[in-house]
Amino acid sequence: MVQNYKLILQYEGTRYHGWEKKKNLDTVQGRVEAVLERMCAAPVQVDGAGRTDAGVHARGMAASVKLDTERTPEQIRDYLNRYLPEDIAVREVRPAAPRFHARLRAVGKTYCYTCWAGPGKPVFDRKFVTILEETPDVERMRRAADFLCGEHDFKSFCGNPRMKKSTLRRLDSIDIAQKGNYLTFRFHGNGFLMHMVRILVGTLLEVGFGRMEPEQMPEILAQRQRSAAGPTAPARGLCLMKVDY
Amino acid sequence: MVQNYKLILQYEGTRYHGWEKKKNLDTVQGRVEAVLERMCAAPVQVDGAGRTDAGVHARGMAASVKLDTERTPEQIRDYLNRYLPEDIAVREVRPAAPRFHARLRAVGKTYCYTCWAGPGKPVFDRKFVTILEETPDVERMRRAADFLCGEHDFKSFCGNPRMKKSTLRRLDSIDIAQKGNYLTFRFHGNGFLMHMVRILVGTLLEVGFGRMEPEQMPEILAQRQRSAAGPTAPARGLCLMKVDY
Repeated sequence: MVQNYKLILQYEGTRYHGWEKKKNLDTVQGRVEAVLERMCAAPVQVDGAGRTDAGVHARGMAASVKLDTERTPEQIRDYLNRYLPEDIAVREVRPAAPRFHARLRAVGKTYCYTCWAGPGKPVFDRKFVTILEETPDVERMRRAADFLCGEHDFKSFCGNPRMKKSTLRRLDSIDIAQKGNYLTFRFHGNGFLMHMVRILVGTLLEVGFGRMEPEQMPEILAQRQRSAAGPTAPARGLCLMKVDY
Repeated sequence: MVQNYKLILQYEGTRYHGWEKKKNLDTVQGRVEAVLERMCAAPVQVDGAGRTDAGVHARGMAASVKLDTERTPEQIRDYLNRYLPEDIAVREVRPAAPRFHARLRAVGKTYCYTCWAGPGKPVFDRKFVTILEETPDVERMRRAADFLCGEHDFKSFCGNPRMKKSTLRRLDSIDIAQKGNYLTFRFHGNGFLMHMVRILVGTLLEVGFGRMEPEQMPEILAQRQRSAAGPTAPARGLCLMKVDY
């Protein structure tokens, strides 16, 4: 009997061409579907809550999938963990209502971006951290972040120049924390455009380095042009933490 | 002017043939010496506090080295961090007394061994964790650990069958902690024989799985034969945390 399931996944994105399946490229969605198709001996479509870029990681990616199997949710989870490569894991498999869809039903997401600034090097988590050459001013970045939170048209922070749909999003919070040599940015919002978190981080770092002013943020938003914002921060520091339903 | 230095190093041992320099093999000592020789334009010998096996990691390896350089300790550290690969870092470089020698002056060491037991997989720290197929009984392992602490002849826990020198060592503590799906063993002692921590872990796990009894430990020590103890646990879970002077 066909049953809908919700999956929670973790992965290190380093060696994948992002979440979304692409022909002839190694992607996380492609890997998960391949294992489930082997398990069910039938075509399977996994819907992720969003597309993470190449090199971006996830601790709490959500996905939905309809499967025709006799296995229990725990058995499905264990089957996936046995046959998925060691950089992809399934934390949870749960039966879901027939209409549940991981992307369409998502109401919020949390992303975390991690940087390292200071002497030494992050040896053990180097794949998850972006190394900065200078130490940014956190107070300046916090002032800029205040301007960016709220409901805005984030077109200036969208990496897709041909984006046809609405670029209006609600950014609930940006928490910037410094702990030793680590600097983390935590974002919560109702949805994120292509590269949006990475462009937000790239712009905040420009402010932190003194190359932009916090007070410029409203003008950058108003311009609705990608070129008005700062650079796109590298993928390796970014991690999708949680999807809300 | 030649000055003696103490270094504190971190590395992920996964792709190295251990700490100790070996001809034609990639080792951590070999890497560090190569960078310092380039810096000083002269042969350099780095003495580590001990030899970590192939695949074993370090968060606080200590080493001593005599260098003829005009650079400050911070400049030496930064030079090393710039030219060492991203899986080796230098946390600290400090001038040391002329007679300081990282191995001969070491009076204690702390090692940590990390296992994962349970559903799911450790995606983000998988290179630093040994995955167990069963969940061991922690209380049984703690009882066995009590028998192993103290000053003993650890010949049964020595991986070198041709060991000529004394196999007497003082094991101060074995702390076994369970946190979620992680199981960690923390060892402190005045010195460790070849593979000793890994054989201790392999033996404790046998007890935890019910295949050996805690009360067998004194007899295993008394036999002074490698075959009396349990298997050698994999290198990937082991990390040298700290060296005491």
